[in-house]
Amino acid sequence: MKILLVGASGTIGSNIYDRLQIDHEIIRAGRNGADVQVDITDESSIRDMYERIGNVDAVINASGSAGFASLTELTPDKNETAINSKLKGQMNLVLLGIPYINDGGSFTLTSGVMMDDPIPKGSSAAMANGAIRSFVTSAAVEMPRDIRINSVSPGLLEESASRIGHFFRGFIPVPGKKVAVAYQKSVEGAQTGQSYEVYE
Amino acid sequence: MKILLVGASGTIGSNIYDRLQIDHEIIRAGRNGADVQVDITDESSIRDMYERIGNVDAVINASGSAGFASLTELTPDKNETAINSKLKGQMNLVLLGIPYINDGGSFTLTSGVMMDDPIPKGSSAAMANGAIRSFVTSAAVEMPRDIRINSVSPGLLEESASRIGHFFRGFIPVPGKKVAVAYQKSVEGAQTGQSYEVYE
Ligand SMILES: NC(=O)c1ccc[n+]([C@@H]2O[C@H](COP(=O)([O-])OP(=O)(O)OC[C@H]3O[C@@H](n4cnc5c(N)ncnc54)[C@H](OP(=O)(O)O)[C@@H]3O)[C@@H](O)[C@H]2O)c1
Ligand SMILES: NC(=O)c1ccc[n+]([C@@H]2O[C@H](COP(=O)([O-])OP(=O)(O)OC[C@H]3O[C@@H](n4cnc5c(N)ncnc54)[C@H](OP(=O)(O)O)[C@@H]3O)[C@@H](O)[C@H]2O)c1
Repeated sequence: MKILLVGASGTIGSNIYDRLQIDHEIIRAGRNGADVQVDITDESSIRDMYERIGNVDAVINASGSAGFASLTELTPDKNETAINSKLKGQMNLVLLGIPYINDGGSFTLTSGVMMDDPIPKGSSAAMANGAIRSFVTSAAVEMPRDIRINSVSPGLLEESASRIGHFFRGFIPVPGKKVAVAYQKSVEGAQTGQSYEVYE
Repeated sequence: MKILLVGASGTIGSNIYDRLQIDHEIIRAGRNGADVQVDITDESSIRDMYERIGNVDAVINASGSAGFASLTELTPDKNETAINSKLKGQMNLVLLGIPYINDGGSFTLTSGVMMDDPIPKGSSAAMANGAIRSFVTSAAVEMPRDIRINSVSPGLLEESASRIGHFFRGFIPVPGKKVAVAYQKSVEGAQTGQSYEVYE
């Protein structure tokens, strides 16, 4: 398959790349993407990317930001990072990408454990994660041309524990390699509308 | 208790009003609110409302819009209604309202069955519903001063079936009176971080 991987250079994205590049042709995207540049917070950048790459069999997104702020410090303004990046960025990759996906292809988006197992400072990210999970549930019943859509909800990655583990007190980190398998299931499997949770 | 009810004149809001006005003082809000005007899509309007009404024991929101559009017709632009109203409107009632809630008070937001039981044209609303549920899950662990927060996910109301029932093929409508009981549980009960689903 020809697979567009947005966020290919990231912690999760590089694990996905390592696993899927064995059997597939991967187009690596990101703001500094090795193969194509895209900023998912910018609609016209998403449109440009799809025009440049043309048709693919699958789109995987492993990028997206959200602000960490305690609830009483979370202003409507600080909430915009999650809205524009993790939420709208991912949705727009789908809404603008459908015409470029081959029949029977797939989208795979990324949410995260904080929506189910909440942590302090996580309510903006949890909001975006929950939005993506429910969008996927619903979009799946309407996808044209047998296109499928799933999301993966990773736990805290082992590789990220030194950087962000202090936010996730008492969480058992999961190996990035294990998280990558869920993306493989979404792309190579036959299910749609799923949220694959990799929490342990 | 002194309860601010945003969307008091609506289908759900009027059922909540009927049930809670027996034991509580209700401030009815909406764009044409009987007691106070507010447009939840406008941050400064929310700020003005809270300044005018001062402290309350509970805030219930039963307002919020989302566009209905089939997935291939859902543009990023059409998705903005759900983002600005159902999603950010409800979140901002919380983020800007915390200082005005008395100790031990509560917030109750509204999501909807479409996030769990998807329908055609519903992916934008489902996205906002899922966002609200996960925001509530997460915000609950950080609320100051014993303030609680829950959401109610109503099924299709009997009272709404003639207007929007054609979107909900094969759904069994639920009486508005039954939906109102879930809001009562949220306000008068002791739980937090819950999603009360009233689907049958
Ligand atoms: N790491 C974890 O433990 C964990 C757990 C659960 C969920 N998640 C979620 O998984 C996603 C990826 O996390 P990660 O830890 O792998 O992130 P990361 O290591 O920071 O990598 C992010 C990747 O996305 C790209 N990127 C960032 N902003 C972008 C934008 N606006 N447009 C396009 N590409 C962009 C980056 O490349 P460029 O800089 O070149 O753009 C990079 O390739 C995030 O949504 C995160 O919340 C992570
Ligand atoms: N009815 C159902 O079957 C059903 C099922 C599941 C979920 N829901 C959800 O429940 C919520 C309420 O539904 P409903 O059927 O009761 O709606 P509705 O009958 O249309 O009533 C909406 C209420 O909200 C107020 N309102 C509308 N926009 C507002 C804004 N921007 N700012 C402040 N107030 C506003 C309206 O008063 P003004 O016009 O004066 O502003 C009215 O009081 C919606 O989020 C809906 O998606 C409904």
